[in-house]
Amino acid sequence: MKKYVYMFDETKNPNTWEAILTLGNKGAQLAEMTNAGLRVPYGFTVSTQGCNDYYAQGKKWPQGLNQQVKQSMSKLEKKMKKKFGDPKNPLFVSVRSGSYVSMPGMMDTVLNLGMNDKTVEGFAHITKNPRAAYDSYRRFINMFGDVVMGVPHHNFEEIISAVKKKVDAKEDTDLTADDLKEVVEKYKALVKKVKGISFPQEPIKQLEMGISAVFGSWNAPRAVSYRRINNLRGDAGTGVSVQAMVFGNMGDDSGTGVSFTRNPATGAKEHYGEFLINAQGEDVVAGIRTPRAVDDMKKTHPVVYKELLGIYAKLEKHYRELQDFEFTFEKGKLYLLQTRNGKRTAQAGVKIAVDMVKEGLITKNEAILRIKPEQLDQLLHKQLDSKAKSATETIAKGIAASPGAAVGKIVFTAERATELKAKGEKIILVRTETSPEDIEGMNVAEGILTARGGKTSHAAVVARGMGKCCVAGCGELHIDEAKKIMTVPKKGITLKELDVIALDGGTGEVFKGQIPLVEPKLSGDFSTLMKWADSIKKLGIRTNAETPKDSQIARDFGAEGIGLARTEHMFFDATRIEAVREMILSDDEKGRRKALAKLLPFQTKDFEGIFKAMNGLPVIIRLLDPPLHEFLPKEESDINHLAKKMNIKPSKIKETIESLSEFNPMLGHRGCRLGITYPEITEMQVTAIFNAAMNMQKKKVKVFPEIEVPLVGNVKEFLAQKEVIEKVAKDLKVKGKVKYKIGTMIEVPRACVTAAEIAKEVDFLSFGTNDLTQMTLGFSRDDAGKFIAAYLEKGILAIDPFQSIDQEGVGKLMIQCVQAARKVNPKINIGICGEHGGDPSSVEFCHKIGLNNVSCSPYRVPIARLAAAQAVLKEKKK
Amino acid sequence: MKKYVYMFDETKNPNTWEAILTLGNKGAQLAEMTNAGLRVPYGFTVSTQGCNDYYAQGKKWPQGLNQQVKQSMSKLEKKMKKKFGDPKNPLFVSVRSGSYVSMPGMMDTVLNLGMNDKTVEGFAHITKNPRAAYDSYRRFINMFGDVVMGVPHHNFEEIISAVKKKVDAKEDTDLTADDLKEVVEKYKALVKKVKGISFPQEPIKQLEMGISAVFGSWNAPRAVSYRRINNLRGDAGTGVSVQAMVFGNMGDDSGTGVSFTRNPATGAKEHYGEFLINAQGEDVVAGIRTPRAVDDMKKTHPVVYKELLGIYAKLEKHYRELQDFEFTFEKGKLYLLQTRNGKRTAQAGVKIAVDMVKEGLITKNEAILRIKPEQLDQLLHKQLDSKAKSATETIAKGIAASPGAAVGKIVFTAERATELKAKGEKIILVRTETSPEDIEGMNVAEGILTARGGKTSHAAVVARGMGKCCVAGCGELHIDEAKKIMTVPKKGITLKELDVIALDGGTGEVFKGQIPLVEPKLSGDFSTLMKWADSIKKLGIRTNAETPKDSQIARDFGAEGIGLARTEHMFFDATRIEAVREMILSDDEKGRRKALAKLLPFQTKDFEGIFKAMNGLPVIIRLLDPPLHEFLPKEESDINHLAKKMNIKPSKIKETIESLSEFNPMLGHRGCRLGITYPEITEMQVTAIFNAAMNMQKKKVKVFPEIEVPLVGNVKEFLAQKEVIEKVAKDLKVKGKVKYKIGTMIEVPRACVTAAEIAKEVDFLSFGTNDLTQMTLGFSRDDAGKFIAAYLEKGILAIDPFQSIDQEGVGKLMIQCVQAARKVNPKINIGICGEHGGDPSSVEFCHKIGLNNVSCSPYRVPIARLAAAQAVLKEKKK
Repeated sequence: MKKYVYMFDETKNPNTWEAILTLGNKGAQLAEMTNAGLRVPYGFTVSTQGCNDYYAQGKKWPQGLNQQVKQSMSKLEKKMKKKFGDPKNPLFVSVRSGSYVSMPGMMDTVLNLGMNDKTVEGFAHITKNPRAAYDSYRRFINMFGDVVMGVPHHNFEEIISAVKKKVDAKEDTDLTADDLKEVVEKYKALVKKVKGISFPQEPIKQLEMGISAVFGSWNAPRAVSYRRINNLRGDAGTGVSVQAMVFGNMGDDSGTGVSFTRNPATGAKEHYGEFLINAQGEDVVAGIRTPRAVDDMKKTHPVVYKELLGIYAKLEKHYRELQDFEFTFEKGKLYLLQTRNGKRTAQAGVKIAVDMVKEGLITKNEAILRIKPEQLDQLLHKQLDSKAKSATETIAKGIAASPGAAVGKIVFTAERATELKAKGEKIILVRTETSPEDIEGMNVAEGILTARGGKTSHAAVVARGMGKCCVAGCGELHIDEAKKIMTVPKKGITLKELDVIALDGGTGEVFKGQIPLVEPKLSGDFSTLMKWADSIKKLGIRTNAETPKDSQIARDFGAEGIGLARTEHMFFDATRIEAVREMILSDDEKGRRKALAKLLPFQTKDFEGIFKAMNGLPVIIRLLDPPLHEFLPKEESDINHLAKKMNIKPSKIKETIESLSEFNPMLGHRGCRLGITYPEITEMQVTAIFNAAMNMQKKKVKVFPEIEVPLVGNVKEFLAQKEVIEKVAKDLKVKGKVKYKIGTMIEVPRACVTAAEIAKEVDFLSFGTNDLTQMTLGFSRDDAGKFIAAYLEKGILAIDPFQSIDQEGVGKLMIQCVQAARKVNPKINIGICGEHGGDPSSVEFCHKIGLNNVSCSPYRVPIARLAAAQAVLKEKKK
Repeated sequence: MKKYVYMFDETKNPNTWEAILTLGNKGAQLAEMTNAGLRVPYGFTVSTQGCNDYYAQGKKWPQGLNQQVKQSMSKLEKKMKKKFGDPKNPLFVSVRSGSYVSMPGMMDTVLNLGMNDKTVEGFAHITKNPRAAYDSYRRFINMFGDVVMGVPHHNFEEIISAVKKKVDAKEDTDLTADDLKEVVEKYKALVKKVKGISFPQEPIKQLEMGISAVFGSWNAPRAVSYRRINNLRGDAGTGVSVQAMVFGNMGDDSGTGVSFTRNPATGAKEHYGEFLINAQGEDVVAGIRTPRAVDDMKKTHPVVYKELLGIYAKLEKHYRELQDFEFTFEKGKLYLLQTRNGKRTAQAGVKIAVDMVKEGLITKNEAILRIKPEQLDQLLHKQLDSKAKSATETIAKGIAASPGAAVGKIVFTAERATELKAKGEKIILVRTETSPEDIEGMNVAEGILTARGGKTSHAAVVARGMGKCCVAGCGELHIDEAKKIMTVPKKGITLKELDVIALDGGTGEVFKGQIPLVEPKLSGDFSTLMKWADSIKKLGIRTNAETPKDSQIARDFGAEGIGLARTEHMFFDATRIEAVREMILSDDEKGRRKALAKLLPFQTKDFEGIFKAMNGLPVIIRLLDPPLHEFLPKEESDINHLAKKMNIKPSKIKETIESLSEFNPMLGHRGCRLGITYPEITEMQVTAIFNAAMNMQKKKVKVFPEIEVPLVGNVKEFLAQKEVIEKVAKDLKVKGKVKYKIGTMIEVPRACVTAAEIAKEVDFLSFGTNDLTQMTLGFSRDDAGKFIAAYLEKGILAIDPFQSIDQEGVGKLMIQCVQAARKVNPKINIGICGEHGGDPSSVEFCHKIGLNNVSCSPYRVPIARLAAAQAVLKEKKK
C-alpha cells in the first residue's frame, strides 16, 4: 500500500527538494519546525501523491488514504490528549493546502474543523467560555460552508449583519454567546436551504470533506491561471496538512501575536511585534482591536514572555535568518503556528546580514547572498517619506523607470524647465515621450514623468544615467503639451503647469501635492558588505557615463572604469548643437569638415574631463551612434529659428529633415554606417580623443582610452573605421605614447554570427544588449510596450527582455559570440554595456558565460558589484 | 633558375586554374587556342611570377627573365621566319597584359612593337605599302609614347589633327604615306621634347620597356581600385603576352573582322559578323568605315571564306559554346586573334543551348547550366523596342526594381490612376514612395516609378508580385505630388500630369515620350529547357500570390503551390478597407468582432478563388502581418472623409492614428503580436480559410491549406495562436475533413536560435528572409538604400543583402535553424518565401542547406526552376 500520510515528526530532512515535493511547502515547513524542537501544534500531512492519485482515480480517495488518515488522527489524539468529536474533551483541527511553491490565497483552508452541536457545548464547558465556543463554531460553519460546500460567503455575512443590527452591536466582539448561538442556528438553516442537506455534524465526515475540498482547490480556475502565469508545474498536486487547533481566545490567559526576531525596518536587534489578549490570529490581521507591543507581555504574561525570548534565539539559531513568526498562547502555553524569513527594508537587510556575520550566525558569503541587489536602489536614492506618502492620493501609476523620488512643479517643455530652474524652482518635466532634444530639460528637472515608453525608452535610459527619478509609460495620463495640462480621465483629475506633484520612481506612483523627501544615507555596514563583495566577484564593474560629474559619482560607487561613454550626448549641448546642425546641413565634405572643426575643441574638453575623473582607469568611448535626423529640430518654430540663425531658408532645413527621415530609424543610417559614409566625423572624434589623452598625460593623468565602433555587423565595417582611426593615430603621432585600444560593440545579430571574423581584428568587444535584444527579438523598445504587457500577462514572456537579458534567445547568440571570439583571440576583453549591465540576473548570466566586465549607469554600480559576487557564490554552490 | 616564360604551345592544359594563375587569363587563352590547332599568331607569355618578382625586387627584372625573353624571341623569329629589328624582314609584336581574371581596360597594351626608322622602311618595302607601314609606325609611337613613356595621348592627337587640317583630310585614312611620315617625325620630336630623350629605336629595348610598363600597370591606381571594388587578389600579378603582329592593312588581300558562330540575337545557326578590307582591328571597333557582312567574303575572298567556315565548326567543336572571335587575314592568310564565349540575348541563349543538345555538342545538363536564370526575365516580360529606345532621351535612371517595360501617361495619385484607367488611358503611377494605400492605383497602372526606395521597398515588392514594371529609388527625380509635376533638376526637365514616359524595368531607365513595346513570346525551346530543369531539380517551387489571377499565372509558369499568400493585401481592397478601419477604430472586442464579421465573407471568397486556382496543390496562407496603422488614412482629407462615413469625429481617428503610430514599425506591433493581442482577428481569418476549404471541397476541388503564423520568435507565441486555430477547427468540425497544416514563418533571429523548440510544434517552417535580413543585419530595407550604395561602392558589401541572401550572416542562422529543426522533427517541411526565393544564388543556397521548397513572385517561377536545377548540377560537379 502506498504511503500517503506523514506525521509532522516523521520526516527526517524536511528541508530537501524531495520532501517539499512530497509534503508541499507548508507540510515541509511544519515538519521542519517540529524537528527543530519548536512547540508547534501537532498534526500530519497528506502527501501531494494523495492529491494526484485522487485526480487519477476520477476524484476519488485512493485506496488506503482513508485508513491512514484515521490512524494518524489517532496518533494526534494521543499526542494532544483530546479526542476528535468527543464532547467531553474535543479535539479541533485546521486543514490547510500547500504545493511545492507557495501559491498565496489560491487554494483553500478550513479552521476549527471538528465543531458540531455537541463538541461546541463541550468546548464551552471545558473553557468556561461559551462565547468563544460559539464564536469558533460560527466561524467554522461559515468557512466550511463557503469553502467545502459552496455556499456563498456573502450569504453568511448578511445573516451576521442582520443579527448585529438587531442587537445594536457595532463589532463582532459585541455579540454575546446567545447572539452567536442565534447566528449558528441561522447559518445551519442557510446551509440546509442552499444545499438541501443539513450541515454535517460527524467530525470524521467533516475531515474527509475538508481534505477533498483542498484537493479540489488545486484545480480551481484561479489556481490553474496562477500556475500558468507563474510557470508552475500543473502535475505537482497539493499537500494537505491537518493540525490541532490551539485557541488564543480562551480568556485573558490566552492570546495571539506576530513578531520579528529583529526590527525589520532598521535591522536593530530588538523585540519587534504585537499581540492581542483573548483573540484568534485573524483578529490581529483584521485590525479590529489595537494590539500591544510584545515587550508589554513582560508585565502581563511574564511566563509566556520568557518562553518567547527563548524562541527568538532558537529561531535565529535554527533558521540563521530574520524570522517573522506567528504565535498563540492557550491558557498560558505558547505555541508557534508559523515562521518564515522576514521581509525587511534594504537598510535593515544590510545591517542584519553584517551583524549576523559578526555574531557568528552566518558567513560572509551567506551575508552577500542575503541581500537582493535590486534592493540597494532604496539606499542610493532619495525616497518619499513613507508616512506622508500613504496619506497622499495616488493619481496614476506608470512604470518604475528610474528609482528615487522627486517633488516639484510640473512643466511640459524642456525650455520652460530650464527657464524656471534658473529662477530656483524645483521642476518635474512631464512629456508624452522625451526625445534627445529634451536632454537639457531633463538635466535641470527633479524628475521626469512620461505617458509613453517603458523601462528602456529614451526617458528611462537617460534618467537612470543621470540618477534621476523617472516614471514612464503612465498610460492613464493624457498630456496636452500645447494646452499645458495633464489629465487623468479615469479619475477626472486635471493638473496644469506649476501644480505640484510627487513621483516615486521605485513604484511608478504619481502623487498630487507635496510629499517630504528622505535623503539616502550609506551606512558603514553597506561599505563592509561591498568590500566583501569586491573580494569575491570576478567581473569588472564599469559605468556608463559621459560627463565628469557622472564619472565621479560612479567612481565613488566603485566603478572600475567607463564601459560606455556615448559621445552623442555631448552633441546635444546648447553650445554644440548649432555646429552639429551646420554639419548635417552641409552639402559636401568641405562644409562638414568646417563644422566639425568647430566641434573639435568641445569634444576634446569633454574627453579631458572624463579622463581626469577616471585617472588610471580604462574609458570606452563610443563613436557617434544615432541617426543624424535626431539632431535636427522638429517644430516649425525651431526650424525657422535655426534657419534665421544659419542664414538659410527654412525650406532647405525641411528638405534635409525630409531626406534624412527614416521609416525605422533603429535599423537605419546610424552607428558605424555614419562613420563609413562620413569618415570625417570619425576623424574629428578620434582626433579629440587622442588630443585629450595627450593633454591629460602632460598633466600626469593616466589615460587608457578604448575607442569603440558602434553597430558593426560585418568585419569590413570595423576595418574601414579602424583604418580611419589608425590614420589619425599616425598623423598625431600617438603610437607608443598613448595606450589605446580599438574595439566594437556587438549589437547586431550578424555580429554574433560572424564573431570569429570580427574578434580577430579587435582589442575588445562590448555587447550592446539593448539593440541586440531589439534586433534578435524584433522588438522596438520604444513601441514594444503595447504588446509586451499582454505577453507578460499571458505568460508568453516571463520577464521584460529589455529589463533582464533574454537568456534563451539573445543569450544563446551571446554565448556563440563569446565562444567564437575567444577561440580566435584568447586575450580578447569582452564586456556588456547598456541597461542589462545593472540587472542582477543579467549580471549573473554575464559571469556564467565568461565575460570580463559589465557596465551600468552610475547608480547601479553597487548593485552590479553585489550581483557579480553573488554570481560567483551561486556558481560555487553548484 | 626560375622559369618565367612560356611559349604558347608549351602548356599542355592551359584551361586549368593553375595555368590561369601562372599565365594570366589572356596568356592561358592564347595557349588554349594554339593547342586547339587554331591559327593564332605565335608568341610567348611572361608569367605572373615574373611580375610579382619584379615588384619583390624593387621594380627590377628578376634574374633570368631577360635571358628567357631573348631565347623566346628567337623561337618566335624562327617560327614566324622573320627577325626582330631586321629591316629586311622585320618581326613586329604586340605586348598585352592579363591577370587571372579579366580586368577590362585597366592595364596596358602596346601594338606594333619593333617599329623604328629602319624597320618601317623595310616593312614598306616588303609590303609595297609605305602608307600601311607609316600608319603602323605612327600608331606605335603614339601608343608606346603614351603607355610606356608617359607622354599624354592628347598631345599626339593635336599633332595628327593639325596635319589633317593642313592637308584637308577628313579621316585618318585620307592621309597619304608622306603625310604620315610627317606625323611620325612630329611625334618623335614631341617625345624628345616632353621626355628629354629620343624615341627608343632599339627593338629589344622597346620590348624591355614594354614588358616593364605592363608590369607597372598592375599597380596603376585605376587597377588597384578595380581590384578593391571587385574583391580581386592584389598579389596575383599580371602575365605579359608577347605575340607576333599580323597586319590586316596590307592591301586588298588583307583585312580584319569579328564574327559570332551563331546569331547572338536570335540564336539561329547562321554566319553573323562583319569585316573590313585593308584595315586593322581597331578600325572595326572605331566604326569609322562601314564594315561588310562576313558572307560577302564568299565573293571577295573565297579562299579565306572557306577557311572561315572551317573555323566556325572548329571553334564550336572545341569550345562547345557560342564563340565571338576576332580574325585578321594578312595577304590571304587567316589568323585568329581572340575568341571568347559570345554574349547573347536570352532568346538566343535558350535556342542555342537547346540546339546544341540536339546537335550532340553538349548534354542537357550543360544546356541547363548555360542559361543565366536572371536572363529569363527578358523572355517573360514586355520589352521596349530596342531601336526606338536607343533613339530616345533617357531623362533619369533609377533602380531596376521590377522587370518589363511600360509606356503611359504620368499621374501622381492612385485615385487619379483609377479614374483615368476607367477612361481607357494607359497610366504610369509616379510617387515619391508608394504605400499600401496605393495598391489599387498600382494595379491599374502600366508601370510604377518612385523617387525613393529600392529593390525591396513596397513599390518594388508589390510590382514584382503583379508582374508589373517598376523603376524605384530614382533619386534624380523630384516629385511634387501636390503640384502634379516631376522634375529632373540636373537636366532642367519638368514633366506634368499626363505627359508620356516610358520605363525600362530591366535597366531602371526612364524615357520621355512614346516607345513601342515588344510582346514577350515563349518559344518551344523555352518549354523544352524548363522540362529538362524540372526533371533535375529537387527543390519545390512555389509562388507568392494572393489573387486567383496571380495564382493562375504562377501555375502556368510551373508553380507547384503557393508559398505565401499575404492576407493583408486583400484588406486594402476598396470593398473591405472600411470594415478593416471600423475594426481598428473599435474600442473593444465586441466592436472588433462586429467589424470582423463583415470581413469574413470577403476573406472566404478570396480563399475560395485561390484554392480553386491551386486545385490539388498546397497553399500557405499567412495570417495578418502588418501593423494596424498601415490601414488607416494619412491625409487630412481622407481622415475627414472616413470620419463622415463612419459617423465619428475626425479627432477620434486622429487619436487612434496617434496611439498606433510607431517609432520602428518594422519591430512593432505586427505579425502574431496582433493575433495574440486580438485573437478575434486570427479567429476570423482561420474561419474564412476553413469555410473556403470546405466550400471548395464540396465542388470537388482538392484543397491543402497551410496556415502560417507570422513573426514568431518564441514558441509560446506560436502555441497561443495554434490554440486559437485548433479551436476554430474544432468548432467548425473540419478535423478529418480538411487536410490542413499549421506552421510559422522564421523571420526573427530569435526564431532561428530557438528553432529546436519551435520545430517540435509545427508542421512547416518558412523563412521570411526579407525580415530576417532586416533584423539580422539591422538594416531597414526602406532606409538602407542611403548607405547600402556606399557599402557596395566601398566593397564592404559584395551584393545587396535584400537581393541575394547574405550567406555569411543570415545564411548561418538559417543553417542553424534547419539543423536544429530537422533534429527534433525530421519530417518537417522547410521553405523560403519573400524576395530571395526568386534570386538564383539564393535558390542555390537554399538547395545546399537542404530546404524543401522556395517561393517567389509568379514571374520569377521559371527563374527559380532553372536555378534549382542548376544548384543540383553544380553540387554534382563538386
